[in-house]
Amino acid sequence: MAKLYFRYGAMNSGKSTGLLQVAFNYEERGQRVLLAKPGVDTKGAGEIVSRLGMSRDVDFLLQPGDDARAQFAAHAAGDDPEALVQHVDVAPVACLLIDEAQFLTPQQVDDLFRIAVEDGVPVIAYGIRTDFKTRAFPGAARLFEIAHALEELKTICRCGRKAIFNTRRVGQDVVFDGEQVAIDGADVWYESLCGKCYLEASGGRL
Amino acid sequence: MAKLYFRYGAMNSGKSTGLLQVAFNYEERGQRVLLAKPGVDTKGAGEIVSRLGMSRDVDFLLQPGDDARAQFAAHAAGDDPEALVQHVDVAPVACLLIDEAQFLTPQQVDDLFRIAVEDGVPVIAYGIRTDFKTRAFPGAARLFEIAHALEELKTICRCGRKAIFNTRRVGQDVVFDGEQVAIDGADVWYESLCGKCYLEASGGRL
Amino acid sequence: MAKLYFRYGAMNSGKSTGLLQVAFNYEERGQRVLLAKPGVDTKGAGEIVSRLGMSRDVDFLLQPGDDARAQFAAHAAGDDPEALVQHVDVAPVACLLIDEAQFLTPQQVDDLFRIAVEDGVPVIAYGIRTDFKTRAFPGAARLFEIAHALEELKTICRCGRKAIFNTRRVGQDVVFDGEQVAIDGADVWYESLCGKCYLEASGGRL
Amino acid sequence: MAKLYFRYGAMNSGKSTGLLQVAFNYEERGQRVLLAKPGVDTKGAGEIVSRLGMSRDVDFLLQPGDDARAQFAAHAAGDDPEALVQHVDVAPVACLLIDEAQFLTPQQVDDLFRIAVEDGVPVIAYGIRTDFKTRAFPGAARLFEIAHALEELKTICRCGRKAIFNTRRVGQDVVFDGEQVAIDGADVWYESLCGKCYLEASGGRL
Repeated sequence: MAKLYFRYGAMNSGKSTGLLQVAFNYEERGQRVLLAKPGVDTKGAGEIVSRLGMSRDVDFLLQPGDDARAQFAAHAAGDDPEALVQHVDVAPVACLLIDEAQFLTPQQVDDLFRIAVEDGVPVIAYGIRTDFKTRAFPGAARLFEIAHALEELKTICRCGRKAIFNTRRVGQDVVFDGEQVAIDGADVWYESLCGKCYLEASGGRL
Repeated sequence: MAKLYFRYGAMNSGKSTGLLQVAFNYEERGQRVLLAKPGVDTKGAGEIVSRLGMSRDVDFLLQPGDDARAQFAAHAAGDDPEALVQHVDVAPVACLLIDEAQFLTPQQVDDLFRIAVEDGVPVIAYGIRTDFKTRAFPGAARLFEIAHALEELKTICRCGRKAIFNTRRVGQDVVFDGEQVAIDGADVWYESLCGKCYLEASGGRL
Repeated sequence: MAKLYFRYGAMNSGKSTGLLQVAFNYEERGQRVLLAKPGVDTKGAGEIVSRLGMSRDVDFLLQPGDDARAQFAAHAAGDDPEALVQHVDVAPVACLLIDEAQFLTPQQVDDLFRIAVEDGVPVIAYGIRTDFKTRAFPGAARLFEIAHALEELKTICRCGRKAIFNTRRVGQDVVFDGEQVAIDGADVWYESLCGKCYLEASGGRL
Repeated sequence: MAKLYFRYGAMNSGKSTGLLQVAFNYEERGQRVLLAKPGVDTKGAGEIVSRLGMSRDVDFLLQPGDDARAQFAAHAAGDDPEALVQHVDVAPVACLLIDEAQFLTPQQVDDLFRIAVEDGVPVIAYGIRTDFKTRAFPGAARLFEIAHALEELKTICRCGRKAIFNTRRVGQDVVFDGEQVAIDGADVWYESLCGKCYLEASGGRL
């Protein structure tokens, strides 16, 4: 039976690099993978971008109302809506890889679970646990409930300890108020911190 | 820096046995531990009971409104309210062990985090992930957000696969409606199932 | 496909308790397990003994020259040489559990691997990594080479850190010379230490 | 206390990519790392090369007779023998990263252990477990004995299962005789296989 994996880690722990490496490993052995991510993540548009310099287009974006299992089935079958010829003979999909899985809806995580358990295709979802207020994103919360395996990708805090939280920064200021989702870019960035450094930055607030 | 650990597993995966073993290991090396559990768990009253036959009294129960860090501090200092003599010289606590941690309030999980990070005492919390409808218990949800380490205790489904869900049974019937908390006993019991067997039992409901 | 698991840990990390818990979990679900250990481990004769107070007879002992796969097959089939009636109808074995696996010969570890891969029966082997000189026991060395999964059972050093080494003690003396195998008992005992405390005890010797 | 980590995986499981990602993560946070590998690995000369396309020079090569701790200390202090000015002010090293660690001598692994435990610098060693005959390389064997943490990097077999063994191929032939070390290149290559596919390829030989 195939499984749904949640590989979680703080911001900048190498999740996209890990995903691209897994895709490479499958394809190097002649096996087919599909890549997807939530449309909420506007960074890189339809690309998965590694800070090490690699990038790759996703096969499909998942918008909040999408049925992830139906989307998967359509793309697995070669039903590219933008292609003229449908149902080309395609190899079966050996693995579905999801980036930024914290932005999925809980329903979409259930879809991924069914892809693994009922359709027999392993799904590896990469994402972060919590927002800048230490509260789980909806997709991450559901993944912690139902994923078959929880695997941590580690990174370090500025103090050298393992980072577990993500602080939001606007310029040099650490902020603790605002919307849950603010994609990092020109104004906003995130710094991964350990528990001790987070509590120091937040004045003891969790 | 000490850490907050969440050792999670399906019902009957050996969590209480694991907890009692860790307590034994510390005490065998001359170190002091404290044991606690939420008062919501009425099974065994103030005891931690392993299905292998061992049991042991907790040092304190945590009721929903309790400040877990204050309770810990009082018991660590030897302030037993039922004892005649207070503040006896006591060894520092090397580890705090929590059973049935899924029943803690989110605030109490934050307290445990502070015990680890600010008081420097490792906290190992044992609990299950989800209720019989595959939804996280409040304490488990918060532990997945902030625990330093998530460690799985595995057990098997009747089919031999790893169990990840807990089905509620009333007699021989599997039920999917009812209150989140119903302590197992004469009428109600739980069976740990893998994803596939759960979906078969629930008619596809997650 | 079934797997060969190596659950390793320092002395007194709860390996036998863990094994007995797994056996209990299988049997509670109506599944049959077999328990075995190397005959080299003379402690408890034919029993697996947990320091928490439980014990249980093994189904068979493995002597150095034994073919572990043949022994397993015979016991799985119900061919108890001491029984009058042979080939009683027996349930298939759902899991083979091995205690003190570090004392197996490399060939016997290969046998366990074939039981998992070719006979389809999961094998969970519990054992320690290294002797009192930090050198792997033969069975452990082979398990590190071929086991499908390496899973650590943790325990603590007297200083509170994770213990990874086993020091041999004769009375209060720590010794670093002698035979690789000396079962703990009246004269000899072992203390699990972290790397730092081991190096202090050994005068820097590894 | 710093730790010695062994991150092991079959050939082509993404070890070099993982190492380069960790180096990136440290440096992005303004921390200094050193990279090294055994001189035995002649592939890429003094470079660590990821199949995803990235590469980076090591800071030093370790030849079989080298004292790894002395080499580390010299490079950490800025004593580049090829530099004209010695002992430039340099930041302390936050992490030492080793690629192809299976080719280290056991003594060099002991050196890495002392760097972690006595010098307080975390060491992360990446390597494979076993040669094409399923026997541990000397460095891997010692790492399994003394590393503080064993962490698996997973990859897949051509059949979709997790690969755990490395078969040597000369052209299309699978070979089971020859020297332990033969760096892959024009004539020789390696294919990572699961236990079942390995036994089929080897005719049952382990």
